[in-house]
Amino acid sequence: MDHQDSVSIRVFSLNCWGVRYLSKHCSRRYAMIGDLLLQEEHDVVLLQEVWSEKDYLFLRKKLAASHVHSHYFKSGVIGSGLAIFSKYRIQDTFLYRYSLNGYPYMAHHGDWFGGKAVGLAVLNIGALTANFYLTHLHAEYCRERDAYLPHRVVQAWELQQFVRHTSAGADVVVLGGDLNMHPQDLGNRLLTTYTELRDAYAETDTFDGCEDGLTLILDNPFISQKVIAPFEKGIRIDYILFKSSCKADIKCVSMRTTKGSVPGQAFPYSDHEALTAEFTLAPSEAAGDLRSSRRDCEGGEVARLVDILTEARTEVKVGVHCAERMRYTAGRTAAMGLALLLLELAIAAVPWLTLGAEQAFPLTSFYLLVALCLAILLCTSLLFIFYTMELKSLQGTEDQMRLAMGGLQEKLRGFPAAKPPEDPKPSDVFTAEE
Amino acid sequence: MDHQDSVSIRVFSLNCWGVRYLSKHCSRRYAMIGDLLLQEEHDVVLLQEVWSEKDYLFLRKKLAASHVHSHYFKSGVIGSGLAIFSKYRIQDTFLYRYSLNGYPYMAHHGDWFGGKAVGLAVLNIGALTANFYLTHLHAEYCRERDAYLPHRVVQAWELQQFVRHTSAGADVVVLGGDLNMHPQDLGNRLLTTYTELRDAYAETDTFDGCEDGLTLILDNPFISQKVIAPFEKGIRIDYILFKSSCKADIKCVSMRTTKGSVPGQAFPYSDHEALTAEFTLAPSEAAGDLRSSRRDCEGGEVARLVDILTEARTEVKVGVHCAERMRYTAGRTAAMGLALLLLELAIAAVPWLTLGAEQAFPLTSFYLLVALCLAILLCTSLLFIFYTMELKSLQGTEDQMRLAMGGLQEKLRGFPAAKPPEDPKPSDVFTAEE
Repeated sequence: MDHQDSVSIRVFSLNCWGVRYLSKHCSRRYAMIGDLLLQEEHDVVLLQEVWSEKDYLFLRKKLAASHVHSHYFKSGVIGSGLAIFSKYRIQDTFLYRYSLNGYPYMAHHGDWFGGKAVGLAVLNIGALTANFYLTHLHAEYCRERDAYLPHRVVQAWELQQFVRHTSAGADVVVLGGDLNMHPQDLGNRLLTTYTELRDAYAETDTFDGCEDGLTLILDNPFISQKVIAPFEKGIRIDYILFKSSCKADIKCVSMRTTKGSVPGQAFPYSDHEALTAEFTLAPSEAAGDLRSSRRDCEGGEVARLVDILTEARTEVKVGVHCAERMRYTAGRTAAMGLALLLLELAIAAVPWLTLGAEQAFPLTSFYLLVALCLAILLCTSLLFIFYTMELKSLQGTEDQMRLAMGGLQEKLRGFPAAKPPEDPKPSDVFTAEE
Repeated sequence: MDHQDSVSIRVFSLNCWGVRYLSKHCSRRYAMIGDLLLQEEHDVVLLQEVWSEKDYLFLRKKLAASHVHSHYFKSGVIGSGLAIFSKYRIQDTFLYRYSLNGYPYMAHHGDWFGGKAVGLAVLNIGALTANFYLTHLHAEYCRERDAYLPHRVVQAWELQQFVRHTSAGADVVVLGGDLNMHPQDLGNRLLTTYTELRDAYAETDTFDGCEDGLTLILDNPFISQKVIAPFEKGIRIDYILFKSSCKADIKCVSMRTTKGSVPGQAFPYSDHEALTAEFTLAPSEAAGDLRSSRRDCEGGEVARLVDILTEARTEVKVGVHCAERMRYTAGRTAAMGLALLLLELAIAAVPWLTLGAEQAFPLTSFYLLVALCLAILLCTSLLFIFYTMELKSLQGTEDQMRLAMGGLQEKLRGFPAAKPPEDPKPSDVFTAEE
């Protein structure tokens, strides 16, 4: 092999909270972020919530010398908000839009308009193919009664599918972003167990940053006390995850986060803390050992996957019932609107047919009611279409999960608890991806 | 290796034209299709336009003994229409929804409601991992003035991205479906050149079926003369494509299509002809040779990709201009609706403020106009949002194409016309995916 024995790469991830005119000190914060990136010269920068293309272009101009290669992922009404800056040439990109992402009428939450997605950028680091994923999942607005949980579980499911299916050819996998999930949340377990991605914070040799790796903290002046209060000090929802391959070993040697304030500045870079992880890449030598050690625990691993999948299916089913109920309500309201409209027309027709213009007919209220009925009909029809699409996506995910469950149970039957695991056969290499 | 020296698999693909109550003889045709599949016992069956889940469930019940494994891909308002039946266990599935797929207000074309997508099913054939893709792209309603061409080019682009990125771990790749593109159409060239998928019809040893492999023919009684007339005998828009890997060689030994009518039946299975391809899979022995022969022509290959990509970018740019114009029109109409509404309210306010109820005010026309203005405002706002999303998708694709072009030009600079190609370096294996 003609690549160096060991390469070091530094990865940066930040949710920039870049809603123009709404986020506080937006343009001044972008200037600060640009300065930081210019000074720190990370190898790969993964940014989320860069909602305005102008801000992306501002950063691109600023980083033209330090980060020659960049890509902005466009999607949805506003955009995906995802941007990558890199010192290495971006060989290829691909964007997967999540099938579910909140509701358009929840405009004050705004997630639907963001067109949330996961972006993939393929870089060549020396002789290695590195897949960098960046994403931003649907926000959690209320932990106790989280109406978006089924949507976020579907997003986590699609994210693990996307990473798993597109990373077979990659020697190194790194995923960064705001997952909007706590470390032990269902979607997070689904993602990490299925993809075998490892958490840089949990695996790093040295860490410098907020206690417990928190990324949304009370000390950050942009964070409202109300949001964080139930969690004492804060929450950890931003991550850098990574994975080795049989060709390259990736190891997190150090990690750090910002701690709310920025020295010498009046306010922080964002309402989220920024993550920086330093990795070393080395040619894989323990590929065989890794495989066999993995094989040893596969029985337990499969059982764990079954548990997580059962939980995820339950959540998705809750979503299905919810969407069915909403669709039914929309359909019934549309039918009532139509019935009312027909009734009005019938009432209007009676004096018109029998009495001509002799009897006064309350025209004002008639027109108002007709307009009201038409508005109801239109809105409920649109909602009916929307809920049908939501239902299809949820049912589709449930189908896929059921199929995956069948495969896992088949595997479990092949792993009797008492017997030692079978020797790896040469053909096992074909199924390693699963 | 513990798999047989050579395996034979038969793949079936059919656009079922399954619009309940609208497609002619729909349920009787499904019964015929079920009988055919039961009798022929293909290994893998790829069906498109199975719009109703009931019809899928009917087929699943009928094929419960012959094709134990099946999956129906759900998406959009109606569904993706994609269904797969297989004798081999379906290990895994994944669905990618195309970002563009026509316009919701073109309800008579109906493509938008179909939620078109590409489905992936991962099967294990012996020790081999086989990726089966099935898809159905946006229809072409008028070849001369094809308003949907940019959408179809974007779909072809996303299809090649999906196949390329998800097939790195596959030993065999088969794609079947109704691409709605003629063999030399831009999208088809984009797909086959980028993915290196080969056309079963062009590569088969023996062929039995319609002349030139046509799949939409005049002899089919469901086809209107008007649609086919400009193309003499018919068109070829349904395909089975395939690709080998360094582990397995796949070869098409025979292919056939139906020829309009079905012996002993009053009408054909569908308005499209059905395709059946028989493949043999063998352990790859010529992997090294294949690679070096491919390397020899890579300079020419790259130049060809540049040409195709240039053409595709032009089409996408046409789409961008079109979407911009439409969005501008929608925005301007919305602004006019709003201005008219305010004007009316001002006119209504004048007598109300100055004269009270003394002077008669034309209430009927007032309410009608207000309702009209509100309807215009609502519709144009929805259109504005829709065109913004269309624009983002088109611009996003254009960005990705520009990035790909940069990479190709970089490669071309490394392939001087006069010099012989360089020896393959060991590190080249990392970039083979590109």
